[in-house]
Amino acid sequence: MARIVLKFGGTSVGDTDRIKNVARKVKAEVLRGNEVAVVVSAMSGATNQLVKWVNEISPLHDPREYDVVVATGEQVTIGLLAMALQQEGVKSRSWTSWQLPIKTDDAYAKARVIEIDTVELARTMSAGEVPIVPGFQGVSPDGRITTLGRGGSDTSAVALAAALKADRCDIYTDVDGVYTTDPRIVEKAQKIDRVTYEEMLEMASLGSKVLQTRSVELAMNHHVRVQVLSSFDEALGSDLPGTLVVDEEEIMAQGLEKSVVSGIAFAKDEAKITVTRVPDRPGVAAAIFGPLAEANINVDMIVQNVSVDGSSTDMTFTVPKADLARAVQRLEQAKGELKFAEVKSDLNVSKVSVIGVGMRSHAGVALKMFETLAAKGINIQVISTSEIKISVLVAAEYTELAVRALHTAYELDAA
Amino acid sequence: MARIVLKFGGTSVGDTDRIKNVARKVKAEVLRGNEVAVVVSAMSGATNQLVKWVNEISPLHDPREYDVVVATGEQVTIGLLAMALQQEGVKSRSWTSWQLPIKTDDAYAKARVIEIDTVELARTMSAGEVPIVPGFQGVSPDGRITTLGRGGSDTSAVALAAALKADRCDIYTDVDGVYTTDPRIVEKAQKIDRVTYEEMLEMASLGSKVLQTRSVELAMNHHVRVQVLSSFDEALGSDLPGTLVVDEEEIMAQGLEKSVVSGIAFAKDEAKITVTRVPDRPGVAAAIFGPLAEANINVDMIVQNVSVDGSSTDMTFTVPKADLARAVQRLEQAKGELKFAEVKSDLNVSKVSVIGVGMRSHAGVALKMFETLAAKGINIQVISTSEIKISVLVAAEYTELAVRALHTAYELDAA
Repeated sequence: MARIVLKFGGTSVGDTDRIKNVARKVKAEVLRGNEVAVVVSAMSGATNQLVKWVNEISPLHDPREYDVVVATGEQVTIGLLAMALQQEGVKSRSWTSWQLPIKTDDAYAKARVIEIDTVELARTMSAGEVPIVPGFQGVSPDGRITTLGRGGSDTSAVALAAALKADRCDIYTDVDGVYTTDPRIVEKAQKIDRVTYEEMLEMASLGSKVLQTRSVELAMNHHVRVQVLSSFDEALGSDLPGTLVVDEEEIMAQGLEKSVVSGIAFAKDEAKITVTRVPDRPGVAAAIFGPLAEANINVDMIVQNVSVDGSSTDMTFTVPKADLARAVQRLEQAKGELKFAEVKSDLNVSKVSVIGVGMRSHAGVALKMFETLAAKGINIQVISTSEIKISVLVAAEYTELAVRALHTAYELDAA
Repeated sequence: MARIVLKFGGTSVGDTDRIKNVARKVKAEVLRGNEVAVVVSAMSGATNQLVKWVNEISPLHDPREYDVVVATGEQVTIGLLAMALQQEGVKSRSWTSWQLPIKTDDAYAKARVIEIDTVELARTMSAGEVPIVPGFQGVSPDGRITTLGRGGSDTSAVALAAALKADRCDIYTDVDGVYTTDPRIVEKAQKIDRVTYEEMLEMASLGSKVLQTRSVELAMNHHVRVQVLSSFDEALGSDLPGTLVVDEEEIMAQGLEKSVVSGIAFAKDEAKITVTRVPDRPGVAAAIFGPLAEANINVDMIVQNVSVDGSSTDMTFTVPKADLARAVQRLEQAKGELKFAEVKSDLNVSKVSVIGVGMRSHAGVALKMFETLAAKGINIQVISTSEIKISVLVAAEYTELAVRALHTAYELDAA
């Protein structure tokens, strides 16, 4: 017998027929003898309608009242799913976030889970009842309703799994797992059976938006084994048909052969900025990035060229495309102080990354990347690396070519 | 300064523009220096959608889960209205039923309010904040969500007014008050300025569906002064432009001239049943109505004819039209035991009633009714009376004629 938390997203519970389908999946897990708790999102479209009403009333609204309104979406789903399970002959009841309670801080509309009281929940589960819990919400120390921000249901599920010391947290989505790269670009992309939290974080933040980043961080901190799988497949979580996100140790301990590189990610949502002829003196990087931080603009890849003439240098970095205009404006405003020559920007770039915990212990991973891209005539504009990833910025038109070439070079293509 | 509870129904908060309009009405009451609390229904249509989903999942559902689902409708409105008030510069916050709490019994889907804790509410009100409270719901002794049944928002408002010892409870609806009869039938129908609880109860149960019956009973028991008025008028409650429902003593104390008859009501939703030649012996009435009570069929007007031949009698009574077929079936099943001749039924009837607390102290009210109907050639099929009302059953085609004639006879026509 295992204790499992199942989480179903908005499209999985998009109408009453789909909710009935979810009930059958939950029942099948119960019939396998597992102790099951379920976390659900709002029916797809419901939250958008609620947010629309809020904005019609007032674009600048009290986040405490915003939370009162939008939290209703999941409350509808918990009641409906509990009924659907009872209809299937499975004992079930819904629990609102204040009934458990799910305690959060008081950062309304973007709260963080502090603690989930699971004493009563665990008791009813061991008595054969399936609790249905709303994702995305909790109660503040003042006893008011909070929400975790969009996508927070994954985080709720992982937090509940941690609190219940569950054997696994199955996140049912509209994809059947994590792939070595986007299957729409590389036909031979393969589903990854097991991936580490660290790799998943790199993949998520690089554009493979399967799991919310915060939920992966939480799973990593609490060692919650997370499985991503499709709610539209017939397969059940206990067969492990999806992608399991776990500790590196678990993968190693099972003696599984782990490829050096797990996947190739890409992102087209960043723009490149080059500030030319910046006087090369201590503190210049801080002087450039200070105004951007003040404007709440995230800077990602950064390269400082070696000083050409001994007195000035070029700084190149990337920012989200949506922030490019503001970033350029801020830098131009600081021109008098910074004394650079000019600010150049380029929207036409793409970030391609090779990810894998195996590269820690393998030399030559970066070299293979550079050689592969060179062989295809793709110019690398910026390079940045971390322990488990190498990212390069290339002209956007080369994105697909680069991803396909790297997927083949690292032997990720399906047979 | 007065303390007032304002209640707005579903059509008054049907979309975000109407919610903004409600906020302006509330603000105007606050600017008059009144302490104001607001009770709201779900946006019109919202509850129906929620109930539809519930029935799609399972027609035989757990009422506890039903309540979790349908209670979300009002939670949306309280958040939106609190925001709209803040937008108008009025301090406001929403309170869910479990935050106050509004304690009810555990009769899920048809719960009764037991107690409302208003300590915190009264404190915030005297500090100038307007609390927004959801109608129609509460929490059970087990800490689960309950609802009061359809139309329960009026009851919530009256219960809150009683708990807050409010000076008045203003119920904003889509009509501007209680009329002497249906203005669609009698052009000269007049709005009644003041009506007693008892009269209002008779009017509500007889078809003038302005206030939910339970809310009027509650108001009567706790002496809550209730005003019915339109949310689409510009007029505010403090001008008393609607109909005030109060104790008879208050009307008397003000030395107001009270007409003997307050209004003429009618109902077309009953059918007549006559059981002929029932053996005239003790216990026969119980024998006839026993099977109907078992089938949960409400019997209204009852007449037992004087025995014609000394050994048998005819029994005539009315039942809701929707229950007629079942009622006849039950009686036919009991024929062997009851030994009557036959069961005759008639759907083509209408109940017309004259209502007024004044008739307690005035003779001749019934006589005038019978004379008026006779003068128009309208045959009376059944008569039933109470202390403050006289009802007659007539052929349905005479309904409008009877109502108009009585409205004139009792001098209710507007000048």
